[in-house]
Amino acid sequence: MGSPVSKREAGEVRIIPIAVKGEIHLGQSLSARLLAATRSLGLRFRDGDILVVKHKVVSKAEGAIVALDEIRPSKVSESWAARYGLDARVSELAMRESRRVVRQKHGVLITETRHGFVCANSGVDVSNVDGGKHAVLLPANSDDSATRLRQALKKQLEIEIAVIITDSFGRPWREGLTEVAIGVAGMQPLLDYRGLRDRHGYSLHASVEAVADELACAAGLVCGKLAGTPACIIRGYSYTRENRRGNSGGRALIRPAKNDLFR
Amino acid sequence: MGSPVSKREAGEVRIIPIAVKGEIHLGQSLSARLLAATRSLGLRFRDGDILVVKHKVVSKAEGAIVALDEIRPSKVSESWAARYGLDARVSELAMRESRRVVRQKHGVLITETRHGFVCANSGVDVSNVDGGKHAVLLPANSDDSATRLRQALKKQLEIEIAVIITDSFGRPWREGLTEVAIGVAGMQPLLDYRGLRDRHGYSLHASVEAVADELACAAGLVCGKLAGTPACIIRGYSYTRENRRGNSGGRALIRPAKNDLFR
Repeated sequence: MGSPVSKREAGEVRIIPIAVKGEIHLGQSLSARLLAATRSLGLRFRDGDILVVKHKVVSKAEGAIVALDEIRPSKVSESWAARYGLDARVSELAMRESRRVVRQKHGVLITETRHGFVCANSGVDVSNVDGGKHAVLLPANSDDSATRLRQALKKQLEIEIAVIITDSFGRPWREGLTEVAIGVAGMQPLLDYRGLRDRHGYSLHASVEAVADELACAAGLVCGKLAGTPACIIRGYSYTRENRRGNSGGRALIRPAKNDLFR
Repeated sequence: MGSPVSKREAGEVRIIPIAVKGEIHLGQSLSARLLAATRSLGLRFRDGDILVVKHKVVSKAEGAIVALDEIRPSKVSESWAARYGLDARVSELAMRESRRVVRQKHGVLITETRHGFVCANSGVDVSNVDGGKHAVLLPANSDDSATRLRQALKKQLEIEIAVIITDSFGRPWREGLTEVAIGVAGMQPLLDYRGLRDRHGYSLHASVEAVADELACAAGLVCGKLAGTPACIIRGYSYTRENRRGNSGGRALIRPAKNDLFR
Protein backbone atom coordinates (compact mmCIF):
# COMPACT_ATOMS: atom_id res chain seq x y z
CA MET A 1 0.00 0.00 0.00
CA GLY A 2 1.19 3.50 -0.79
CA SER A 3 1.50 6.43 1.56
CA PRO A 4 -1.53 8.49 2.58
CA VAL A 5 -0.29 11.16 0.19
CA SER A 6 -0.50 9.13 -2.97
CA LYS A 7 -3.76 7.60 -1.82
CA ARG A 8 -5.31 10.96 -1.40
CA GLU A 9 -4.55 11.93 -4.98
CA ALA A 10 -7.16 9.44 -6.10
CA GLY A 11 -10.16 10.01 -8.34
CA GLU A 12 -13.85 10.30 -7.84
CA VAL A 13 -15.64 9.01 -4.75
CA ARG A 14 -19.20 7.70 -5.11
CA ILE A 15 -21.87 7.49 -2.42
CA ILE A 16 -24.42 4.90 -3.46
CA PRO A 17 -27.61 4.63 -1.39
CA ILE A 18 -29.01 1.25 -0.34
CA ALA A 19 -32.77 1.53 0.05
CA VAL A 20 -34.23 -1.24 2.20
CA LYS A 21 -37.92 -2.16 2.01
CA GLY A 22 -39.74 -2.68 5.28
CA GLU A 23 -38.53 -2.69 8.87
CA ILE A 24 -35.61 -4.62 10.30
CA HIS A 25 -36.50 -6.59 13.42
CA LEU A 26 -34.80 -8.35 16.29
CA GLY A 27 -32.94 -11.46 15.27
CA GLN A 28 -32.97 -10.71 11.56
CA SER A 29 -29.66 -10.97 9.74
CA LEU A 30 -28.67 -7.44 8.81
CA SER A 31 -26.09 -8.70 6.32
CA ALA A 32 -28.73 -10.82 4.57
CA ARG A 33 -31.16 -7.89 4.42
CA LEU A 34 -28.51 -5.54 3.04
CA LEU A 35 -27.33 -8.09 0.49
CA ALA A 36 -30.91 -8.68 -0.66
CA ALA A 37 -31.44 -4.93 -0.93
CA THR A 38 -28.29 -4.38 -2.97
CA ARG A 39 -29.20 -7.24 -5.28
CA SER A 40 -32.69 -5.89 -5.86
CA LEU A 41 -31.12 -2.51 -6.70
CA GLY A 42 -28.72 -4.13 -9.16
CA LEU A 43 -25.76 -3.21 -6.94
CA ARG A 44 -22.78 -5.41 -6.29
CA PHE A 45 -20.20 -4.91 -3.53
CA ARG A 46 -16.62 -4.54 -4.69
CA ASP A 47 -13.36 -5.14 -2.89
CA GLY A 48 -12.39 -1.92 -1.12
CA ASP A 49 -15.96 -0.64 -0.76
CA ILE A 50 -17.03 0.95 2.51
CA LEU A 51 -20.46 -0.02 3.80
CA VAL A 52 -21.92 2.69 6.02
CA VAL A 53 -24.96 1.76 8.13
CA LYS A 54 -27.08 3.92 10.44
CA HIS A 55 -26.90 2.44 13.91
CA LYS A 56 -30.66 2.33 14.24
CA VAL A 57 -31.05 -0.75 12.04
CA VAL A 58 -28.11 -2.40 13.82
CA SER A 59 -29.71 -1.73 17.21
CA LYS A 60 -33.07 -3.03 16.00
CA ALA A 61 -31.57 -6.24 14.61
CA GLU A 62 -29.60 -6.75 17.84
CA GLY A 63 -32.57 -6.02 20.08
CA ALA A 64 -31.10 -2.85 21.59
CA ILE A 65 -34.59 -1.43 21.95
CA VAL A 66 -36.64 -0.81 25.06
CA ALA A 67 -40.41 -0.70 25.59
CA LEU A 68 -41.03 2.74 27.08
CA ASP A 69 -43.99 1.65 29.20
CA GLU A 70 -41.68 -0.66 31.14
CA ILE A 71 -39.56 2.29 32.27
CA ARG A 72 -40.36 3.80 35.69
CA PRO A 73 -38.72 7.23 35.75
CA SER A 74 -37.02 8.45 38.89
CA LYS A 75 -38.29 11.59 40.62
CA VAL A 76 -35.29 13.46 39.21
CA SER A 77 -36.04 12.38 35.63
CA GLU A 78 -39.71 13.24 36.08
CA SER A 79 -38.98 16.70 37.35
CA TRP A 80 -36.43 17.39 34.59
CA ALA A 81 -38.80 16.13 31.88
CA ALA A 82 -41.81 18.01 33.25
CA ARG A 83 -39.85 21.23 33.33
CA TYR A 84 -39.06 21.06 29.60
CA GLY A 85 -42.03 19.11 28.24
CA LEU A 86 -40.00 15.95 27.61
CA ASP A 87 -40.89 12.27 27.97
CA ALA A 88 -39.64 11.33 31.45
CA ARG A 89 -39.16 7.71 30.40
CA VAL A 90 -36.74 8.78 27.67
CA SER A 91 -34.85 11.03 30.09
CA GLU A 92 -34.67 8.15 32.55
CA LEU A 93 -33.31 5.79 29.90
CA ALA A 94 -30.75 8.40 28.85
CA MET A 95 -29.55 8.64 32.45
CA ARG A 96 -29.36 4.85 32.77
CA GLU A 97 -27.33 4.57 29.55
CA SER A 98 -24.83 7.17 30.75
CA ARG A 99 -21.83 6.94 32.98
CA ARG A 100 -21.59 10.67 33.51
CA VAL A 101 -23.58 13.82 32.85
CA VAL A 102 -21.48 16.34 30.91
CA ARG A 103 -24.10 19.13 30.76
CA GLN A 104 -27.74 19.34 31.77
CA LYS A 105 -29.27 22.70 31.02
CA HIS A 106 -32.07 24.40 29.05
CA GLY A 107 -33.74 21.00 28.46
CA VAL A 108 -30.59 19.55 26.89
CA LEU A 109 -28.92 16.52 28.47
CA ILE A 110 -25.38 15.81 27.27
CA THR A 111 -23.94 12.62 28.68
CA GLU A 112 -20.94 10.39 28.36
CA THR A 113 -22.30 6.97 27.41
CA ARG A 114 -21.02 3.69 28.72
CA HIS A 115 -19.00 3.41 25.49
CA GLY A 116 -17.41 6.83 26.08
CA PHE A 117 -19.35 8.77 23.43
CA VAL A 118 -20.37 12.27 24.45
CA CYS A 119 -23.78 13.03 22.95
CA ALA A 120 -27.34 14.13 23.70
CA ASN A 121 -29.52 11.74 25.71
CA SER A 122 -26.91 8.95 25.59
CA GLY A 123 -28.01 8.31 22.01
CA VAL A 124 -31.47 7.14 23.14
CA ASP A 125 -33.88 7.86 20.28
CA VAL A 126 -37.60 7.43 19.71
CA SER A 127 -37.84 8.60 16.09
CA ASN A 128 -38.00 6.06 13.27
CA VAL A 129 -38.92 3.24 15.63
CA ASP A 130 -42.64 2.64 16.06
CA GLY A 131 -44.29 5.93 16.76
CA GLY A 132 -43.31 6.33 20.42
CA LYS A 133 -43.79 2.91 21.99
CA HIS A 134 -40.14 1.86 21.94
CA ALA A 135 -36.82 3.66 22.19
CA VAL A 136 -33.69 2.57 20.39
CA LEU A 137 -30.38 2.50 22.27
CA LEU A 138 -26.89 2.57 20.83
CA PRO A 139 -25.56 -0.92 20.05
CA ALA A 140 -23.91 -2.49 23.12
CA ASN A 141 -20.54 -2.49 21.31
CA SER A 142 -20.70 -0.90 17.89
CA ASP A 143 -17.15 -1.91 16.93
CA ASP A 144 -18.12 -5.53 17.53
CA SER A 145 -21.32 -4.98 15.53
CA ALA A 146 -19.29 -3.53 12.65
CA THR A 147 -16.85 -6.43 12.80
CA ARG A 148 -19.64 -9.02 12.74
CA LEU A 149 -21.28 -7.34 9.76
CA ARG A 150 -17.95 -7.16 7.96
CA GLN A 151 -17.19 -10.82 8.63
CA ALA A 152 -20.63 -11.93 7.46
CA LEU A 153 -20.25 -10.03 4.20
CA LYS A 154 -16.69 -11.23 3.72
CA LYS A 155 -17.82 -14.82 4.14
CA GLN A 156 -20.67 -14.44 1.67
CA LEU A 157 -18.91 -12.32 -0.93
CA GLU A 158 -15.28 -13.33 -0.45
CA ILE A 159 -14.12 -9.73 -0.65
CA GLU A 160 -12.72 -7.21 1.82
CA ILE A 161 -14.96 -4.29 2.67
CA ALA A 162 -14.83 -1.84 5.55
CA VAL A 163 -17.90 -1.21 7.71
CA ILE A 164 -18.85 1.99 9.53
CA ILE A 165 -21.84 2.29 11.87
CA THR A 166 -23.09 5.85 12.38
CA ASP A 167 -25.25 8.03 14.56
CA SER A 168 -26.19 11.72 14.33
CA PHE A 169 -24.52 13.78 17.05
CA GLY A 170 -24.74 17.45 17.86
CA ARG A 171 -21.58 19.37 18.64
CA PRO A 172 -20.62 22.43 20.66
CA TRP A 173 -20.36 25.81 18.93
CA ARG A 174 -22.07 24.74 15.73
CA GLU A 175 -25.72 24.33 14.81
CA GLY A 176 -27.17 21.13 13.46
CA LEU A 177 -26.34 17.46 13.73
CA THR A 178 -23.74 15.64 11.66
CA GLU A 179 -23.09 11.94 11.33
CA VAL A 180 -20.27 10.36 13.31
CA ALA A 181 -18.71 6.91 13.19
CA ILE A 182 -19.58 4.98 16.36
CA GLY A 183 -18.37 1.62 15.06
CA VAL A 184 -15.62 0.89 12.55
CA ALA A 185 -14.19 -2.36 11.15
CA GLY A 186 -11.70 -3.11 8.39
CA MET A 187 -10.14 0.35 8.16
CA GLN A 188 -8.16 2.85 10.18
CA PRO A 189 -10.58 5.54 11.38
CA LEU A 190 -7.85 8.19 11.65
CA LEU A 191 -5.43 9.25 8.94
CA ASP A 192 -2.24 10.57 10.47
CA TYR A 193 -0.29 13.17 8.49
CA ARG A 194 2.05 14.08 11.34
CA GLY A 195 5.66 14.00 10.30
CA LEU A 196 4.77 14.22 6.61
CA ARG A 197 5.82 17.35 4.74
CA ASP A 198 3.79 19.57 2.45
CA ARG A 199 5.13 20.45 -0.99
CA HIS A 200 7.01 23.37 0.51
CA GLY A 201 8.84 21.06 2.90
CA TYR A 202 6.87 22.27 5.91
CA SER A 203 6.25 19.50 8.41
CA LEU A 204 2.59 19.01 9.34
CA HIS A 205 2.20 19.19 13.09
CA ALA A 206 -1.37 18.77 14.11
CA SER A 207 -2.92 16.99 11.16
CA VAL A 208 -4.79 13.88 12.07
CA GLU A 209 -7.91 13.53 9.95
CA ALA A 210 -10.96 11.72 11.30
CA VAL A 211 -11.68 9.99 8.00
CA ALA A 212 -14.27 7.62 9.46
CA ASP A 213 -16.30 10.63 10.65
CA GLU A 214 -15.92 12.28 7.23
CA LEU A 215 -17.14 9.08 5.60
CA ALA A 216 -20.05 9.00 8.06
CA CYS A 217 -20.96 12.57 7.04
CA ALA A 218 -20.69 11.71 3.35
CA ALA A 219 -23.08 8.81 3.97
CA GLY A 220 -25.45 11.19 5.76
CA LEU A 221 -26.03 12.92 2.42
CA VAL A 222 -27.89 9.88 1.06
CA CYS A 223 -29.05 8.08 4.22
CA GLY A 224 -32.09 10.11 5.17
CA LYS A 225 -33.62 10.61 8.53
CA LEU A 226 -37.05 9.92 7.08
CA ALA A 227 -36.46 7.87 3.95
CA GLY A 228 -35.97 4.11 4.06
CA THR A 229 -32.27 4.30 3.22
CA PRO A 230 -30.40 3.07 6.28
CA ALA A 231 -27.14 2.31 4.47
CA CYS A 232 -24.93 3.19 1.56
CA ILE A 233 -21.78 2.10 -0.20
CA ILE A 234 -18.89 4.55 -0.47
CA ARG A 235 -16.74 3.56 -3.42
CA GLY A 236 -13.44 4.99 -4.60
CA TYR A 237 -12.03 6.13 -1.28
CA SER A 238 -8.69 4.41 -0.64
CA TYR A 239 -8.71 3.86 3.07
CA THR A 240 -5.91 2.34 5.11
CA ARG A 241 -6.85 -1.24 5.84
CA GLU A 242 -6.79 -2.22 9.45
CA ASN A 243 -3.52 -3.37 10.83
CA ARG A 244 -3.03 -5.21 14.09
CA ARG A 245 -1.22 -2.53 16.00
CA GLY A 246 -4.38 -1.63 17.86
CA ASN A 247 -5.78 1.88 18.01
CA SER A 248 -8.47 0.93 15.56
CA GLY A 249 -12.26 0.79 15.66
CA GLY A 250 -14.63 3.60 16.44
CA ARG A 251 -13.11 3.64 19.93
CA ALA A 252 -10.01 5.29 18.49
CA LEU A 253 -12.14 8.33 17.63
CA ILE A 254 -13.03 8.95 21.27
CA ARG A 255 -10.65 11.45 22.81
CA PRO A 256 -9.42 10.21 26.18
CA ALA A 257 -10.91 12.35 28.96
CA LYS A 258 -7.46 13.36 30.19
CA ASN A 259 -6.66 15.01 26.82
CA ASP A 260 -10.04 16.69 26.53
CA LEU A 261 -10.37 20.39 27.36
CA PHE A 262 -14.18 20.27 27.35
CA ARG A 263 -15.28 17.76 29.96
CA MET B 1 -39.10 21.90 -5.34
CA GLY B 2 -40.17 18.93 -3.25
CA SER B 3 -39.98 18.51 0.48
CA PRO B 4 -36.71 17.55 2.18
CA VAL B 5 -38.11 14.04 2.49
CA SER B 6 -38.50 13.35 -1.21
CA LYS B 7 -35.20 15.09 -1.93
CA ARG B 8 -33.38 12.79 0.39
CA GLU B 9 -34.64 9.72 -1.43
CA ALA B 10 -32.41 10.66 -4.33
CA GLY B 11 -29.77 8.54 -6.02
CA GLU B 12 -26.03 8.43 -6.03
CA VAL B 13 -23.87 11.36 -4.95
CA ARG B 14 -20.50 11.87 -6.64
CA ILE B 15 -17.46 13.68 -5.24
CA ILE B 16 -15.25 14.73 -8.13
CA PRO B 17 -11.80 16.14 -7.31
CA ILE B 18 -10.47 19.24 -9.05
CA ALA B 19 -6.69 19.07 -9.15
CA VAL B 20 -5.09 22.47 -9.69
CA LYS B 21 -1.54 22.80 -11.02
CA GLY B 22 0.74 25.29 -9.28
CA GLU B 23 0.09 27.79 -6.54
CA ILE B 24 -2.70 30.36 -6.36
CA HIS B 25 -1.47 33.85 -5.59
CA LEU B 26 -2.81 37.19 -4.45
CA GLY B 27 -5.00 38.90 -7.01
CA GLN B 28 -5.50 35.84 -9.17
CA SER B 29 -9.05 34.98 -10.15
CA LEU B 30 -9.94 31.82 -8.28
CA SER B 31 -12.95 31.23 -10.53
CA ALA B 32 -10.73 31.44 -13.64
CA ARG B 33 -8.18 29.04 -12.14
CA LEU B 34 -10.86 26.55 -11.13
CA LEU B 35 -12.57 26.77 -14.51
CA ALA B 36 -9.26 26.21 -16.28
CA ALA B 37 -8.55 23.25 -14.01
CA THR B 38 -11.94 21.64 -14.64
CA ARG B 39 -11.56 22.14 -18.38
CA SER B 40 -8.13 20.54 -18.41
CA LEU B 41 -9.60 17.58 -16.50
CA GLY B 42 -12.43 17.26 -18.99
CA LEU B 43 -14.95 18.25 -16.32
CA ARG B 44 -17.94 20.49 -16.88
CA PHE B 45 -20.03 22.13 -14.16
CA ARG B 46 -23.71 21.29 -14.20
CA ASP B 47 -26.68 23.14 -12.81
CA GLY B 48 -27.18 22.03 -9.21
CA ASP B 49 -23.52 21.12 -8.64
CA ILE B 50 -21.87 22.11 -5.37
CA LEU B 51 -18.35 23.48 -5.63
CA VAL B 52 -16.40 22.90 -2.41
CA VAL B 53 -13.14 24.84 -1.99
CA LYS B 54 -10.57 24.68 0.81
CA HIS B 55 -10.31 28.12 2.33
CA LYS B 56 -6.54 28.21 1.93
CA VAL B 57 -6.69 28.96 -1.80
CA VAL B 58 -9.41 31.55 -1.18
CA SER B 59 -7.28 33.25 1.48
CA LYS B 60 -4.23 33.20 -0.79
CA ALA B 61 -6.12 34.71 -3.73
CA GLU B 62 -7.60 37.38 -1.45
CA GLY B 63 -4.28 38.15 0.20
CA ALA B 64 -5.30 36.95 3.66
CA ILE B 65 -1.72 35.94 4.35
CA VAL B 66 0.82 37.47 6.70
CA ALA B 67 4.62 37.53 6.57
CA LEU B 68 5.65 35.97 9.87
CA ASP B 69 8.83 38.03 10.22
CA GLU B 70 6.71 41.17 10.41
CA ILE B 71 4.98 39.90 13.55
CA ARG B 72 6.38 41.05 16.90
CA PRO B 73 4.98 38.68 19.52
CA SER B 74 3.86 40.01 22.88
CA LYS B 75 5.56 38.80 26.07
CA VAL B 76 2.50 36.65 26.77
CA SER B 77 2.63 34.99 23.35
CA GLU B 78 6.37 34.44 23.69
CA SER B 79 6.05 32.79 27.04
CA TRP B 80 3.16 30.57 25.92
CA ALA B 81 5.00 29.53 22.74
CA ALA B 82 8.30 28.90 24.55
CA ARG B 83 6.56 26.69 27.07
CA TYR B 84 5.20 24.34 24.40
CA GLY B 85 7.81 24.68 21.65
CA LEU B 86 5.52 26.71 19.37
CA ASP B 87 6.23 29.60 16.99
CA ALA B 88 5.47 32.72 19.06
CA ARG B 89 4.60 34.69 15.92
CA VAL B 90 1.88 32.20 15.05
CA SER B 91 0.53 32.29 18.61
CA GLU B 92 0.55 36.08 18.47
CA LEU B 93 -1.34 36.10 15.15
CA ALA B 94 -3.87 33.63 16.55
CA MET B 95 -4.51 35.96 19.49
CA ARG B 96 -4.85 38.98 17.19
CA GLU B 97 -7.36 37.13 15.00
CA SER B 98 -9.49 36.17 18.00
CA ARG B 99 -12.14 38.03 19.90
CA ARG B 100 -12.06 35.65 22.84
CA VAL B 101 -10.00 32.78 24.20
CA VAL B 102 -12.23 29.75 24.82
CA ARG B 103 -9.50 27.43 26.21
CA GLN B 104 -5.74 27.75 26.52
CA LYS B 105 -4.15 24.68 28.02
CA HIS B 106 -1.57 21.95 27.31
CA GLY B 107 -0.22 23.93 24.34
CA VAL B 108 -3.65 24.13 22.72
CA LEU B 109 -5.24 27.52 22.06
CA ILE B 110 -8.96 27.43 21.24
CA THR B 111 -10.36 30.83 20.32
CA GLU B 112 -13.51 32.41 19.05
CA THR B 113 -12.51 34.19 15.84
CA ARG B 114 -13.78 37.58 14.75
CA HIS B 115 -16.28 35.71 12.56
CA GLY B 116 -17.55 33.69 15.53
CA PHE B 117 -15.93 30.36 14.63
CA VAL B 118 -14.55 28.43 17.58
CA CYS B 119 -11.37 26.65 16.49
CA ALA B 120 -7.68 26.14 17.24
CA ASN B 121 -5.35 29.13 16.73
CA SER B 122 -8.12 31.25 15.17
CA GLY B 123 -7.61 29.23 12.00
CA VAL B 124 -4.11 30.64 11.48
CA ASP B 125 -2.12 28.04 9.54
CA VAL B 126 1.45 27.77 8.26
CA SER B 127 1.22 24.43 6.41
CA ASN B 128 0.78 24.38 2.64
CA VAL B 129 1.87 28.00 2.29
CA ASP B 130 5.57 28.52 1.62
CA GLY B 131 7.50 26.47 4.10
CA GLY B 132 7.11 28.68 7.16
CA LYS B 133 7.62 32.26 5.90
CA HIS B 134 3.95 33.20 5.72
CA ALA B 135 0.83 32.25 7.63
CA VAL B 136 -2.61 32.00 6.07
CA LEU B 137 -5.59 33.53 7.88
CA LEU B 138 -9.25 32.71 7.43
CA PRO B 139 -10.91 34.83 4.71
CA ALA B 140 -12.16 38.13 6.11
CA ASN B 141 -15.74 37.14 5.32
CA SER B 142 -16.01 33.65 3.91
CA ASP B 143 -19.72 33.94 3.08
CA ASP B 144 -18.89 36.96 0.91
CA SER B 145 -16.02 35.00 -0.66
CA ALA B 146 -18.37 32.11 -1.44
CA THR B 147 -20.93 34.50 -2.91
CA ARG B 148 -18.35 36.19 -5.14
CA LEU B 149 -17.08 32.84 -6.41
CA ARG B 150 -20.63 31.69 -7.06
CA GLN B 151 -21.50 34.88 -8.94
CA ALA B 152 -18.35 34.69 -11.07
CA LEU B 153 -19.11 31.10 -12.07
CA LYS B 154 -22.76 31.89 -12.67
CA LYS B 155 -21.80 34.73 -14.97
CA GLN B 156 -19.34 32.62 -16.95
CA LEU B 157 -21.34 29.42 -17.11
CA GLU B 158 -24.93 30.70 -16.89
CA ILE B 159 -25.87 27.98 -14.41
CA GLU B 160 -26.73 27.87 -10.72
CA ILE B 161 -24.21 26.20 -8.48
CA ALA B 162 -23.74 26.33 -4.74
CA VAL B 163 -20.35 27.15 -3.22
CA ILE B 164 -18.94 25.97 0.12
CA ILE B 165 -15.61 27.15 1.54
CA THR B 166 -14.09 24.81 4.13
CA ASP B 167 -11.49 24.57 6.84
CA SER B 168 -10.39 21.63 9.02
CA PHE B 169 -11.49 22.07 12.63
CA GLY B 170 -10.93 19.90 15.66
CA ARG B 171 -13.81 19.21 18.01
CA PRO B 172 -14.26 18.39 21.68
CA TRP B 173 -14.58 14.76 22.76
CA ARG B 174 -13.45 13.26 19.47
CA GLU B 175 -10.01 12.73 17.97
CA GLY B 176 -8.98 14.08 14.59
CA LEU B 177 -9.97 17.00 12.44
CA THR B 178 -12.96 17.10 10.13
CA GLU B 179 -13.89 19.63 7.48
CA VAL B 180 -16.45 22.30 8.27
CA ALA B 181 -18.23 24.85 6.09
CA ILE B 182 -17.00 28.35 6.94
CA GLY B 183 -18.58 30.02 3.91
CA VAL B 184 -21.73 29.02 2.04
CA ALA B 185 -23.55 30.55 -0.95
CA GLY B 186 -26.47 29.38 -3.05
CA MET B 187 -27.84 26.78 -0.66
CA GLN B 188 -29.34 26.43 2.79
CA PRO B 189 -26.59 25.13 5.11
CA LEU B 190 -29.08 23.53 7.52
CA LEU B 191 -31.84 21.06 6.65
CA ASP B 192 -34.66 21.30 9.14
CA TYR B 193 -36.72 18.18 9.77
CA ARG B 194 -38.53 19.59 12.80
CA GLY B 195 -42.28 19.17 12.54
CA LEU B 196 -41.94 16.45 9.88
CA ARG B 197 -43.06 12.98 10.81
CA ASP B 198 -41.27 9.65 10.34
CA ARG B 199 -43.07 6.76 8.66
CA HIS B 200 -44.56 5.75 12.01
CA GLY B 201 -46.11 9.17 12.44
CA TYR B 202 -43.64 10.20 15.14
CA SER B 203 -42.81 13.88 14.97
CA LEU B 204 -39.09 14.66 14.77
CA HIS B 205 -38.12 17.04 17.54
CA ALA B 206 -34.46 17.81 17.43
CA SER B 207 -33.51 17.03 13.87
CA VAL B 208 -31.70 19.82 12.14
CA GLU B 209 -28.98 18.46 9.88
CA ALA B 210 -25.87 20.52 9.17
CA VAL B 211 -25.76 19.50 5.51
CA ALA B 212 -23.12 22.08 4.57
CA ASP B 213 -20.77 20.54 7.14
CA GLU B 214 -21.55 17.04 5.86
CA LEU B 215 -20.81 18.22 2.33
CA ALA B 216 -17.56 19.76 3.61
CA CYS B 217 -16.60 16.40 5.14
CA ALA B 218 -17.47 14.56 1.95
CA ALA B 219 -15.20 16.97 0.06
CA GLY B 220 -12.45 16.29 2.60
CA LEU B 221 -12.29 12.71 1.27
CA VAL B 222 -10.85 13.92 -2.04
CA CYS B 223 -9.32 17.31 -1.16
CA GLY B 224 -6.05 16.27 0.43
CA LYS B 225 -3.98 18.08 2.96
CA LEU B 226 -0.86 17.41 0.90
CA ALA B 227 -2.05 16.83 -2.64
CA GLY B 228 -2.77 19.70 -5.02
CA THR B 229 -6.51 19.21 -4.91
CA PRO B 230 -7.98 22.30 -3.26
CA ALA B 231 -11.52 21.83 -4.58
CA CYS B 232 -14.09 19.35 -5.76
CA ILE B 233 -17.52 19.14 -7.27
CA ILE B 234 -20.28 17.34 -5.37
CA ARG B 235 -22.91 16.20 -7.83
CA GLY B 236 -26.27 14.55 -7.23
CA TYR B 237 -27.07 16.03 -3.83
CA SER B 238 -30.38 17.92 -4.01
CA TYR B 239 -29.82 20.85 -1.72
CA THR B 240 -32.36 23.50 -0.85
CA ARG B 241 -31.55 26.56 -2.91
CA GLU B 242 -31.10 29.72 -0.96
CA ASN B 243 -34.21 31.71 -0.25
CA ARG B 244 -34.32 35.29 0.90
CA ARG B 245 -35.62 34.74 4.39
CA GLY B 246 -32.14 35.12 5.81
CA ASN B 247 -30.55 32.59 8.13
CA SER B 248 -28.32 31.46 5.31
CA GLY B 249 -24.58 31.39 4.71
CA GLY B 250 -21.95 29.71 6.83
CA ARG B 251 -22.91 32.14 9.60
CA ALA B 252 -26.10 30.13 10.15
CA LEU B 253 -23.94 27.19 11.26
CA ILE B 254 -22.47 29.14 14.17
CA ARG B 255 -24.44 28.49 17.34
CA PRO B 256 -25.21 31.76 19.11
CA ALA B 257 -23.18 31.97 22.33
CA LYS B 258 -26.34 32.26 24.44
CA ASN B 259 -27.54 28.82 23.24
CA ASP B 260 -24.15 27.19 23.65
CA LEU B 261 -23.48 25.03 26.70
CA PHE B 262 -19.73 24.87 26.03
CA ARG B 263 -18.40 28.43 26.04
